Order: sequence, then structure tokens, then C-alpha cells
Amino acid sequence: MALTLEQFNSAPAAQALQWLDGLYEHSPWIVERVLPQRPFVSLAQLKAALAQVVRESSADAQLDLIRAHPELAGKAMVSQSLTAESTNEQGKAGLTDCSPAEFARIQQLNSDYNARFGFPFILAVRGARGLGLTRQEIIDTFERRVHNHPDFERAEALRNIHRIAEIRLNDKFGVEPVQGNEVWDWHEKLSQHSDPGYAEKGQLTVTYLTDAHRACAQRLAQGMRDCGFDDVAIDAVGNVVGRYHAATPGARSLLTGSHYDTVRNGGKYDGRLGIYVPMACVKALAQAQRRLPFGIEVVGFAEEEGQRYKATFLGSGALIGDFKPAWLEQKDADGVTMREAMQHAGLCVDDIPKLQRDPQAYLGFVEVHIEQGPVLNELDLPLGVVTSINGSLRYLGEVIGTASHAGTTPMDRRRDAATAVAELALYVEKRAAQDADSVGTVGQLQVPNGSINVVPGRCQFSLDLRAPVDAQRDALARDVLAELAALCERRGLRYTLEETLRASAAPSDPALQQRWEAAVQAQGVPVFRLPSGAGHDAMKLHEVMPQAMLFVRGQNSGISHNPLESTTNDDMQLAVQTFSHVLNQIANDQP
Amino acid sequence: MALTLEQFNSAPAAQALQWLDGLYEHSPWIVERVLPQRPFVSLAQLKAALAQVVRESSADAQLDLIRAHPELAGKAMVSQSLTAESTNEQGKAGLTDCSPAEFARIQQLNSDYNARFGFPFILAVRGARGLGLTRQEIIDTFERRVHNHPDFERAEALRNIHRIAEIRLNDKFGVEPVQGNEVWDWHEKLSQHSDPGYAEKGQLTVTYLTDAHRACAQRLAQGMRDCGFDDVAIDAVGNVVGRYHAATPGARSLLTGSHYDTVRNGGKYDGRLGIYVPMACVKALAQAQRRLPFGIEVVGFAEEEGQRYKATFLGSGALIGDFKPAWLEQKDADGVTMREAMQHAGLCVDDIPKLQRDPQAYLGFVEVHIEQGPVLNELDLPLGVVTSINGSLRYLGEVIGTASHAGTTPMDRRRDAATAVAELALYVEKRAAQDADSVGTVGQLQVPNGSINVVPGRCQFSLDLRAPVDAQRDALARDVLAELAALCERRGLRYTLEETLRASAAPSDPALQQRWEAAVQAQGVPVFRLPSGAGHDAMKLHEVMPQAMLFVRGQNSGISHNPLESTTNDDMQLAVQTFSHVLNQIANDQP
Repeated sequence: MALTLEQFNSAPAAQALQWLDGLYEHSPWIVERVLPQRPFVSLAQLKAALAQVVRESSADAQLDLIRAHPELAGKAMVSQSLTAESTNEQGKAGLTDCSPAEFARIQQLNSDYNARFGFPFILAVRGARGLGLTRQEIIDTFERRVHNHPDFERAEALRNIHRIAEIRLNDKFGVEPVQGNEVWDWHEKLSQHSDPGYAEKGQLTVTYLTDAHRACAQRLAQGMRDCGFDDVAIDAVGNVVGRYHAATPGARSLLTGSHYDTVRNGGKYDGRLGIYVPMACVKALAQAQRRLPFGIEVVGFAEEEGQRYKATFLGSGALIGDFKPAWLEQKDADGVTMREAMQHAGLCVDDIPKLQRDPQAYLGFVEVHIEQGPVLNELDLPLGVVTSINGSLRYLGEVIGTASHAGTTPMDRRRDAATAVAELALYVEKRAAQDADSVGTVGQLQVPNGSINVVPGRCQFSLDLRAPVDAQRDALARDVLAELAALCERRGLRYTLEETLRASAAPSDPALQQRWEAAVQAQGVPVFRLPSGAGHDAMKLHEVMPQAMLFVRGQNSGISHNPLESTTNDDMQLAVQTFSHVLNQIANDQP
Repeated sequence: MALTLEQFNSAPAAQALQWLDGLYEHSPWIVERVLPQRPFVSLAQLKAALAQVVRESSADAQLDLIRAHPELAGKAMVSQSLTAESTNEQGKAGLTDCSPAEFARIQQLNSDYNARFGFPFILAVRGARGLGLTRQEIIDTFERRVHNHPDFERAEALRNIHRIAEIRLNDKFGVEPVQGNEVWDWHEKLSQHSDPGYAEKGQLTVTYLTDAHRACAQRLAQGMRDCGFDDVAIDAVGNVVGRYHAATPGARSLLTGSHYDTVRNGGKYDGRLGIYVPMACVKALAQAQRRLPFGIEVVGFAEEEGQRYKATFLGSGALIGDFKPAWLEQKDADGVTMREAMQHAGLCVDDIPKLQRDPQAYLGFVEVHIEQGPVLNELDLPLGVVTSINGSLRYLGEVIGTASHAGTTPMDRRRDAATAVAELALYVEKRAAQDADSVGTVGQLQVPNGSINVVPGRCQFSLDLRAPVDAQRDALARDVLAELAALCERRGLRYTLEETLRASAAPSDPALQQRWEAAVQAQGVPVFRLPSGAGHDAMKLHEVMPQAMLFVRGQNSGISHNPLESTTNDDMQLAVQTFSHVLNQIANDQP
């Protein structure tokens, strides 16, 4: 018989401690310290409390916790002295079936890792649905992580320990994240479609209106029908639109969704999570034959990433009437115009203007999205409420000095373009850090044809500046540009600078943001607010209706636009529950 | 009748001023201020004093001087209101014969230049032997200079004004730099030989043992014979060796020379000046049928630049017994081994060990070289005495952080490899400047595959550190490497660093350096000491005998390894006189 939360909440401490024995490897003190906080409203709250205990413990205690873990396929496995939990996990990951070469490789990595960090490599080898990582994925991850900085790797070890504890906790409570698992499976299935050239390499790439993209639309549409949507269609720009009707005809709808196209060699969750989470909610409503006083319109936006054509936000842009006919003549890398691609896909270009929505027909727009950043991951928080989608400015620039002999040009007679850009990059770093939630990045940096013995005469760079409100962004840009001018003047250099992008900030609608916050709180998860540094479809809808977003934690430091992008079935489950809670809140408040 | 220095020195001030009327365009105050310094021992001293007056005058006075000059092919030329001197100069440069297109282009440049800088473009259009620049060269220079920084361009205008004054002064005194002109002509003739692929583009490239290289050796050898050397030969590595015998057999010799190979698309003077200056001195001795108590051995070194093969200093290395047989198997870009190239050129590889000199047979090694740096040019000094050839250390490195989304990664959670290298580059700049004569350069800098919206996960860079003595160089390197380690530790990054070159410093022999100083002083030129940041053949000879070098000012901020590398017939004349003075000094001191 599985343990229930009620039992755990009401049992004597010793009993509760014993039930959770082995949750953290050889470290009962962690559970011990959360017991006074009982009762917990949810396992999510218990998990957050456990993580908090570890966060607040000393660095030595954290290190001891890490060191309490066995090596992967290490001596303890060979001598069968693992804990029952570790035996189960390492066995399920197939580590007991290693080939001699795999075993030798893992031993070498164990040795290198321990020599470098002074603690064993820890990886949650069981993943969603207990299926876990393959041996090759484990070895790949190991080889990647052995190069990390010790500080990062210590934090990553603790995160994996919490993930291991989460899976063990689910086992103890007999809990399966059923909706999270289903959402996980949907992502897996959709990720089987990839553009030619990438599919062969096992990489995920779905760009606008390719065969893979059209297959995704088809699969999404069928998925919506299977969930019980009343009305599903692929529209004139390729958006997949599913409507779940309100209890009464003519009621307004809540608009939600995200994009299903991807960057090249991207992740499985970027965009798609925002389609599948509300689909899981609608599925539950339909199964319960329940109608809300408002409709739900879920849109899988056809295009957001700007990979095939220069224009971006083709899907969400069409819904707000911002689809410029001139875009139809843009060509992809093979010279195929967007118009030709749309005709090839059977889309009726003439119908695009009809896609524009009447904002009065909607309660607003909400969007779930994987964070694509490290914040939630580092704070051990599964969910975050978005306060604003940052406004951004981008520039491409070049500083021009005088190339000269590195040996013969005294330090006080140089016109070094690279040290000038270095000074700019450090200024950007310092200045952005002074604001709350501003970011500034020099992502491109190069001395063209630089030589080891030549003082750089030219240095090219990019600037990416973002802030939650436009005034803050503009003040940041003003200071950075003034610094560039001043340092070039002081150093006797000239520069060029071209603004390549200017996007306005999209602050969340306070009422909708409050819905997310209340829903997160209801899960027992601490409410954490953060801006979105990346752009999202919600930015476009923001122009015509209130909007607010929910972020879901990404694994691997929140890496995105990368095959390592990942989240967990447990976090997906929380996202579904949170979205459902928002639907219920709005339903309760409707007349 | 031309003016003599004696007349000028002894004339009443008003008379002297009148004689030099028009030397500086509409600016008699410059001559006026040097008159109290009479008598001058040489025109070079007078020129230095004039330049010094301008250097010490206010920025406003300097600007007035610049603005007193007419535009090139400007309104004043068209309306025939130029000074007599300017009319002569612009006419000789062919500016009065511009095509309509050339004229229009120059007018546009005049307008752009004036708008940017607030003063007219000034260029000494008459060059060596009064032949001057072609119209196309004038337009090219104009187009290049219009992009310079205003500070630099103001200084460059003043330098051109001094060069114009120098040529006018020579006219007034009826002085021709006869030996300087001959040395100039020799360089011009030698530069007609260039490797295939470069010759067609009018570029100068002479790499080891190509047809052009062998033609240069032949021409140098014949030139030495024409000068009256007693014994001229091309040795087993392709060095051209000319000996001018001492008055008595068995006397020791002074060794001198430099290399005649070039970098790709290089300048005409790098290396070759150090062969031709002593050749001009020997020519004068031979014409006077004069023998010194020591022999003079001038070597045109076959190879110094390391362009065709990886090994460098093949010529001077052979003279000190540092020619490694393994080098013979190195291959050029076409797969031709050095051994094959030498056989093809008729060189006897087996004789290379015989080239090693007995240091006891020599008084030492002196080398004249174009500065290849901006120092003398900026200080308005034609000559400089080298204190040491700097020791150097080179490294290639990479900082590895974590690539992450530029929008979603907060400033305090980044592991930005590029800002780390930026910090290093600024540290190198600051630390090197703290030493006298140290230099430090990050010449290569790039974020591989950098994206505008990605925090750099990797950044590659080079380091070039040099100082006049090895201990100073090593202290610099120690500090820079410690800073790299410290900042990576602080920023949570790792790095790789590979040392690619370590060359010892070669301080000048005090006695030989003193010879150069006395000889420079004898020309009436201020003695200025500086280290050599670049490597030279003298570094190799340093290993076995005393050595000291003389630098000759380079035009165009001392640019080198570039077709813009240049010097003047007047500076060459001073170099010949200075070298002759050294020969006479040593002769006078010999028993």
C-alpha cells in the first residue's frame, strides 16, 4: 500500500522519517528538518521544502550529501553494496548490463570526475515514466559534465539529487504524474517529425511549411480532436486552431497556445509545451463532459522562430492582422518564396486577412512556455510567473582603429580596436547588472583576420540589450551607446553601429498574472516572478489583448535552442494542474 | 646661387628669415623662433629644431598652420592663387593635369575631409628625388586618410607639413641627398622582383629561393661588385656576402647586413635597407680608395621572415651554426622540401656547416633597419638607437564558459567566455603599460560561431608579450597568466593556454650602441633610444658576438609588412652618413 499525504502529515515524526527513509542517499537529516513544516498541501510543496533545506545547509553539508552517493556503475554496484534505491535505479538504466568498453569508459570518467571535483558524478538516470536515459546518453552527459566548472557541477549534482528524490518520493506515495506523462509522450511523438538532413542525424528541426512541419500540424490537429475539442482546423497560415466551446453560445473565449516550429537542431519543448498543456486540460474537461462559462481556443502557431524566412511570428502575427503581404515574396535558402511554400501546402493566401481576431471576443491570452533560462532550475522551482516579456534592442557594430605591429607599437601609441570592444563588453556587463532584470550581451565578437603579432585594427561585435519595460531598455541603450562613443573618442578610434532590431516590452496584464500566481500557489509551489528575456507569441497578442505567461523549469541549466533542452514529467504535471486551476478560477469568477 | 649653412648661421635674423620665406606656408613664425638657436651644425639639426617649435606650439597655432595650406587641386589652384612653392609642388605632382573624373573625385574628398576634420588635406606630394606621388597614389592616400581619427590626422598633417618643409629647405640650400637617392633607387630596382601571383598584382613578395628571390640575390651580388667590394659570393643558404678588405690582412671585420626576403605583399625597405646603407658606405670608401684598419662584411641574409618554410632566420642562423639539418625536410605549401628548393637553386647543402663564423674574427655586428613602428615618426625624429631587441612570449588560448540564451540568462547567472577574455585583454593593456617598453597584445580574438542572442560559451584569443629583458618579460607573463587564472576562477570558467613561442631578449652591446649614439649626435639629430619590438637578424648574431642596431623612421606611422611601408631619401641619407660615421669612429679608435 502506498503512503498518502494525509498519513505523512499526521504521523509521528519518527514514523514519517522512517517512511521516507532512503529518500536522500544516507542523509535522513534532510527529511528530518522538513517534518516540523507539516502539514504539506501537496507533494510539490514537500519537494520544495526538501530542496530548501539543502539550499540553506552549509557547503560542507551539501558536499557530504553529494559524497553520500555511489559512483555510477562503480565499485559499490560491482560489490552489490548499493542502497536498494540505487540498485533499482542503476539497474533500470541498464548500467548492470554495460559492455566491457562502456564499463571501462565509465570507470575512467568516474576517476577523472572524482579527481577534478572531489565528489562522485551524480545523474538522475531514471527520467520520465521511469524509462530513463540510455547508457549512451549517460556516457554523453558524463563526458560533457566532467568539463564543467566545479561551482556549477556542485549545483548540478544537488539538482540531480533532488530529481532522484522526487522520483523516489513519487514511488513511495504511489503517485504517477499521469497528465505530465501524457504531455511528455505527445512531445516525444511530435519530435519524430524533422526536416530532411536533420531527421537523418536524429536532430529536431521543423521549419515553416516543410513536410515535417505539415506532418506536425496534422498530428496536432488529430491530437486536439482526440482530446475532445469541438472544432479543429488548420488555418490559412498553417496555425492549428482547436476550439472547446463555452457552456453558452456567444460567450467570450480564453485564447492560448504557442508555436510548433523549431529552430535548427533545437529542443522538443520550446513552443510545443504551450500547446500540449492546455490540450491536456481540455481533454480532462471533455472527459468530464464539463463546459466552462467561456470558450477555450488553443492555437498551435505555425511559425515563430524565423528560421526559413526572414519574417517571424507569422502565426501569431496573422491573428492580430500583422501579416504583411510583402512577406509572401521572401525567399528561403533554396529560393522558394513564402507564397510558393504556402501554395504547395494548400494554404489559401487570400484568407490570411480573415484570421484577424476581434479582441472583444476574448478574455485574453495566456501562454505556457519552457523557461529557456537557468533561473527556475537554479532556484529548484518548477514554475515561474512572467512579469513582462522584455523589450529588446539589437545592434551590429565595428570599431576601427589602426592595425600595427604588436612588437613595435608602444602601448601609449596604439589604436587597438579589440581592447575598445573589450571595454565596451565589460561596460555592458556592469551596466546591465545595475538594473533589476536588464540583460546586455556581446554575443558576436571578432577581430577579422587577426594575427598573433598585429594590434587589432578592426573589431566587430553585436549588442543585445533587453529590459522588462521600454524606458529601462532605452536608458540602458543610451548609456551603452554613450560609453561606446566616449571610449572611442578617448582611444582615438571610430566606429559604426547599426540597429537591427527594436521590440517593445510586453508587461503582463496584472489580472491575468494574478491568475497564474494564485494557481501556482494552489499547487503548494512558491510563487516566483521573473521577466521573460526571450520573445514569445504572447508579445504579438499583447498588442491587442491582455496577456500573461507561465514558465516551466528547464533542465540542464535551462538550455534551449539545443537538443539538451529538457523538462520533466513532474513539472509538466504541475503545469497542467496550474493551467486547470486558472481555468477553474476564471470559471468561478464568471457571472 | 644656393644658400649655404654658414651664410644662414651668420646672417642677420631678418635676412635669414627672408631666405627661408615660404618654408612653412604663410607661417614665418616657425623659422623666426629657431633663429636664436643658430648656428646649426647641419640641415638635419635645423629641421629637427623647426619640428620642435611646432611640437611645442599650442594646438590652435598648429591648427592655424595646417589651415594655412591650400587644398590639393582646390580652388586656390584653379584660381592660380597658390604660393610659388605650392604651385611648383602641385604642378609636379600632375594635379594641374587631372582628368575631369579625378578632379571631381578630389573635390569630393576635399569637401568630405574638410567637413570631417575642419582643415584641408595635406600631403607631401613630392617624394624622393622630387619625383613624387602619382595622381592615383594621391587619391588612394586621400581616400585612406579621410577615415582616420581626427587626432591622428592632425598629427599626420603636421608630419606632411614638415616633409614639405624639408624638401623646400633642400631646394633653398641646393642640397641633394645623393647617397640617400642612390639607396632609394636601389630599393626601387630590387622591388621589381616579386614572386608569381604577386608580381602580376604589383605586390612585393620575395620568399626563400623563388625565382624572384634568386634574382634579388644576383642583383645584390652585382650591386656589391659595382660598389667596389673585393669579394662577393652567394653562400650555401643563399646569403649574399660582400667583403671589403681591411688595410692589413688578418685584421678583424665588422659584420653587418640584414635580410632581402619579404613577407607576402610587404614593403620595400624591411631588411633591405640594412644591406644597402652599408653598401653605400663601402662604395664611398672604394671610390676614395680608402681602406680601414678593419674589414667590412656586408651580408644580405637570404631568409628571415619564415614565409615559405616554418623555420626562420635561415640566413643569420647559418652564420652562427644554428641551421638544423631537419629543417631541410620541411615542405612549403606546394610540397617542395627546403632541400629540393636549395638543390633547384644550385646551393650546396653540404657546405652549410662551413658558413659558421668565428666570432673572434669580428668586431661585432651592426644592423640598420626601418623601425617598423610609429615612434620615430610621431616624434619627428629620422633615426633611433636600439637599446635591446625585445624578448617575447606567445600563447594561444581559449576560455570556456556556458553558451546560453542572451535574453533569458540573468547577468548574475552567466558564464560568459567573451567578457572574461575582454577583462584579460584590458588587463594586458594596463599591465604592459606599467612597464617601460613592455608591450602586450591580444591580436586574435573571436567567439566561434557567435550569435547576437547567445551568451558566448567559448572565446579564443592570442597573447603576445614582449619586453627588453627576459626578466621583465617573464614578470609580465607571470602577472597576465595569474590574472587569467584568477578571473576564470572568479567567473566560474575554465581555460586552455598553449605557449607557442619563447624568444630571449637581445640587449645591445653598450660599446656598439654608444657608437651609434655618437654618430647620430654628429648628424645634429637628437639621440633617441628605443627597444626593438620586432625580431631581427641581429638577434641571432647576438648569440655569438656583440651587436647593436640603428632604426630609420618609417612614414605612414611606421606601418610595415604592408605596401604602405615607406621612408624618405633624406632619412636614408642620414642613415648612410651615420653608418659612415660609425666606421670612421671605429677606424680612429683602432690601433
